[in-house]
Amino acid sequence: MTRTVLSSATREIVIGFDQPFCVIGERINPTGRKLLAAEMKVGDYSRVQTDALAQVAAGATMLDVNAGIPLADEPRILAETIELVQSLTDLPLSIDSSIIAALEAGLAVYRGKALVNSVTGEDENLELVLPLVKKHGAAVVAISNDESGISTDPDVRFAVAKKIVERAADHGIGHEDVVVDPLVMPVGAMNDAGRQVFTLVRRLREELKVNTTCGASNISFGLPNRRVMNGHFLSMAMAAGMTSAIMNPLHDEDMNAVRAANVLMGHDPDCRTWLKANRDPNAAPSETEGRRARGERRRRRAA
Amino acid sequence: MTRTVLSSATREIVIGFDQPFCVIGERINPTGRKLLAAEMKVGDYSRVQTDALAQVAAGATMLDVNAGIPLADEPRILAETIELVQSLTDLPLSIDSSIIAALEAGLAVYRGKALVNSVTGEDENLELVLPLVKKHGAAVVAISNDESGISTDPDVRFAVAKKIVERAADHGIGHEDVVVDPLVMPVGAMNDAGRQVFTLVRRLREELKVNTTCGASNISFGLPNRRVMNGHFLSMAMAAGMTSAIMNPLHDEDMNAVRAANVLMGHDPDCRTWLKANRDPNAAPSETEGRRARGERRRRRAA
Repeated sequence: MTRTVLSSATREIVIGFDQPFCVIGERINPTGRKLLAAEMKVGDYSRVQTDALAQVAAGATMLDVNAGIPLADEPRILAETIELVQSLTDLPLSIDSSIIAALEAGLAVYRGKALVNSVTGEDENLELVLPLVKKHGAAVVAISNDESGISTDPDVRFAVAKKIVERAADHGIGHEDVVVDPLVMPVGAMNDAGRQVFTLVRRLREELKVNTTCGASNISFGLPNRRVMNGHFLSMAMAAGMTSAIMNPLHDEDMNAVRAANVLMGHDPDCRTWLKANRDPNAAPSETEGRRARGERRRRRAA
Repeated sequence: MTRTVLSSATREIVIGFDQPFCVIGERINPTGRKLLAAEMKVGDYSRVQTDALAQVAAGATMLDVNAGIPLADEPRILAETIELVQSLTDLPLSIDSSIIAALEAGLAVYRGKALVNSVTGEDENLELVLPLVKKHGAAVVAISNDESGISTDPDVRFAVAKKIVERAADHGIGHEDVVVDPLVMPVGAMNDAGRQVFTLVRRLREELKVNTTCGASNISFGLPNRRVMNGHFLSMAMAAGMTSAIMNPLHDEDMNAVRAANVLMGHDPDCRTWLKANRDPNAAPSETEGRRARGERRRRRAA
């Protein structure tokens, strides 16, 4: 049973086949968010703070932190953002950058065991990222593309993932600390994109014994009613064995999918999380008790 | 590739691993519907008619027809209902009764190849239902319980299904004409009910090569927000290989689940059905063309 253990200074979470799905909140990311990018660039982290707390409240298991702003001092901004977010929540973080110096700066200030997002199958990238991951005792997201780009052939993507897992082992990083992203293509452009991911997730789990993750929303690119499609993609990927996703915990459809699939995979004992999230305010025990108590008082007054 | 072919007088549908999910509309069933039961009992089939047409419009692939009314002449009512429904739609029907004489009366009037719903693993039931199925060249739903009731052990339920498939073969009915219902337990009462079904569906498909079906809504019995849970149960069961369900096509959450999962399983070429069902009226090509045409006219007038 593969367990990827991640931590902050005071809290540990586990990604695993026998665990509730790990929701990695994606909101702290200036890509495509001009206002957030402009603010972060000048050291205004108010929106980061709001986004962090909202994702925690919505039920994220971890938060992804990205500071990819063109022409900005990404290492400094990423480190500052991580320090801020770690002061706000005890959820472990995923440190998200394609710039090695930024990963380095982020890992230097991070308290706990982080998830480095990400390494690819490119030799140069492997030799830069894996030593950093090892040095800081972190885990890493492995993206299954390499020098030749992203293959549409799932067997090639599997082979790239295998190469990364093997290379990580050469660096002393166990397969339990490599979380593979099999890469999700838009199903509108490639009709077997969904099935490909489900098959890959199953193979990655059975053959490489690794946990998996993905950027789920890519599946529905270009289609109408994206959130419903994303939700079912998530629950179906969970049925295939996916154990985490980088996603927006503020989207109800996605979180409902995760909570329903946790119940249906047997990872929500006594449906406790489901019941809590879907409590009918008119039928909730506390309310009922409240009414009973009020009735009690009325009877006493009448007596 | 297992294909269960069913037909009406003029239309054929296929349940299969490579096919869009088969939605068997469950509404024509007086169980728990007092008004419908009272009407059907006195030969008023107006509500049957409405239910049939609504389910067809909502996208059902087949319709289930049940006439189980206490103290009524079920064989006559079932036959009349089937004749009426077959006059309204060319969708194939599932003839649903636990009474052999009713199945017999239904099959006698049915035009096409019907799905008989159902046979159990009880020896007496097998020896009564299977000869009927064979005689009328029908297919049959196999419910995986037997004399000892419904086992909570999925291995026992698999063994019962295997027994039914073998007994059907003895009667000259191929495995492609046996659609197994692995039985869905409420996940609120039995925490691994979901996972059990997914595992069973996979085994039934891989080891017995049979199509599968279920009454999906049972999974959420006793839980809040049932429709969302049912929808994700359906899409996850489809990811596991389930090929049909007896369900309510008038529930949007369920139909969205089926349509999304058809896309994600690669069974909705070019997402055509998804696009049709989720067309944004403000962005639909016909509307856009309409606006272009109107613009064209305006320019002509201005000229």
